[in-house]
Amino acid sequence: MNFCSDCGAKAIVERIPEGDNRMRYVCDACGRIHYQNPRIIAGCLPIYQDQVLLCKRAIEPRYGLWTLPAGFMENGESVEEGAMRETWEEAQAKVKIISLQSQFSLPHISQVYMLYLAELTDLNFAAGTESLDVRLYQEADIPWEQLAFPVIKLSLENYFADRKQGEVHLHRQTLQSRRYARKDSE
Amino acid sequence: MNFCSDCGAKAIVERIPEGDNRMRYVCDACGRIHYQNPRIIAGCLPIYQDQVLLCKRAIEPRYGLWTLPAGFMENGESVEEGAMRETWEEAQAKVKIISLQSQFSLPHISQVYMLYLAELTDLNFAAGTESLDVRLYQEADIPWEQLAFPVIKLSLENYFADRKQGEVHLHRQTLQSRRYARKDSE
Repeated sequence: MNFCSDCGAKAIVERIPEGDNRMRYVCDACGRIHYQNPRIIAGCLPIYQDQVLLCKRAIEPRYGLWTLPAGFMENGESVEEGAMRETWEEAQAKVKIISLQSQFSLPHISQVYMLYLAELTDLNFAAGTESLDVRLYQEADIPWEQLAFPVIKLSLENYFADRKQGEVHLHRQTLQSRRYARKDSE
Repeated sequence: MNFCSDCGAKAIVERIPEGDNRMRYVCDACGRIHYQNPRIIAGCLPIYQDQVLLCKRAIEPRYGLWTLPAGFMENGESVEEGAMRETWEEAQAKVKIISLQSQFSLPHISQVYMLYLAELTDLNFAAGTESLDVRLYQEADIPWEQLAFPVIKLSLENYFADRKQGEVHLHRQTLQSRRYARKDSE
């Protein structure tokens, strides 16, 4: 942030506003405080019988690796709508949401993943513009070494472990990654 | 948003960028797309034996009405840390989180509430700067007509209903309110 989006002045400073206890971007010209907040990544773990749907990424980061359909939640939608929209955009798949399966906080990048266990309503899926390929995988065939993100691996591991126990439930976890610099004030 | 926070030009327009399917704030001078995303409100439903902790608001909106301790999640923290921080700031109370009790999507104002059932670790609570009063309430004494927000009422109703059944679980719900104008693109 170089300029104030309210008044246009090149007067953005980082300081703790009066009555606050955190560093914020503040405009020294007009006084406007520009708050920054975490973003939600909504997605699905789509299943069909004993198989799981994965998407091969056609975009960076992690081009060519496998992921669950998920992306930034948009204004004006519910978390579930966001998860279903991403599943449609990336896998052209329609799903029925069963339950919230994962809530991962990634404080180092100020993201919160919310992944829903969801059932494919039919087998009419296909690669969307952000995917190279979309496939159903049995547990034994999951490309564990070619998964795009740690949260995807965790979500799949939790799902298969739960399935063996006969009960799928919500997993909440906070992940700290040393691969990212800490960016609290961005 | 009047000015581009990147280049300072007064050239912000609303349009659908190439390869996108939503209206965005775009700078016509430098091309930067300014995305807007929903915000998370993290909070707790603090309990002590058969009582629930409520806070009387010392700030607008809904000054003087009762609420659960909750507020905007900050960058650099987990959802649970945000919920515990808000409980400390508003009620000076320390809690141990039990489970995620409510997930409410409010698409008309692009907010997602995440409220955790949490147990007070002791009875050392007090009104924080944003509260006029903090009290423990038995179910029969809850000031139902003086609750600050519909989500607070729903969360409490769900909790007491679950408690009667002997099993507390996650409630997911999308609320559309006619009291707010729809603001998808803000």
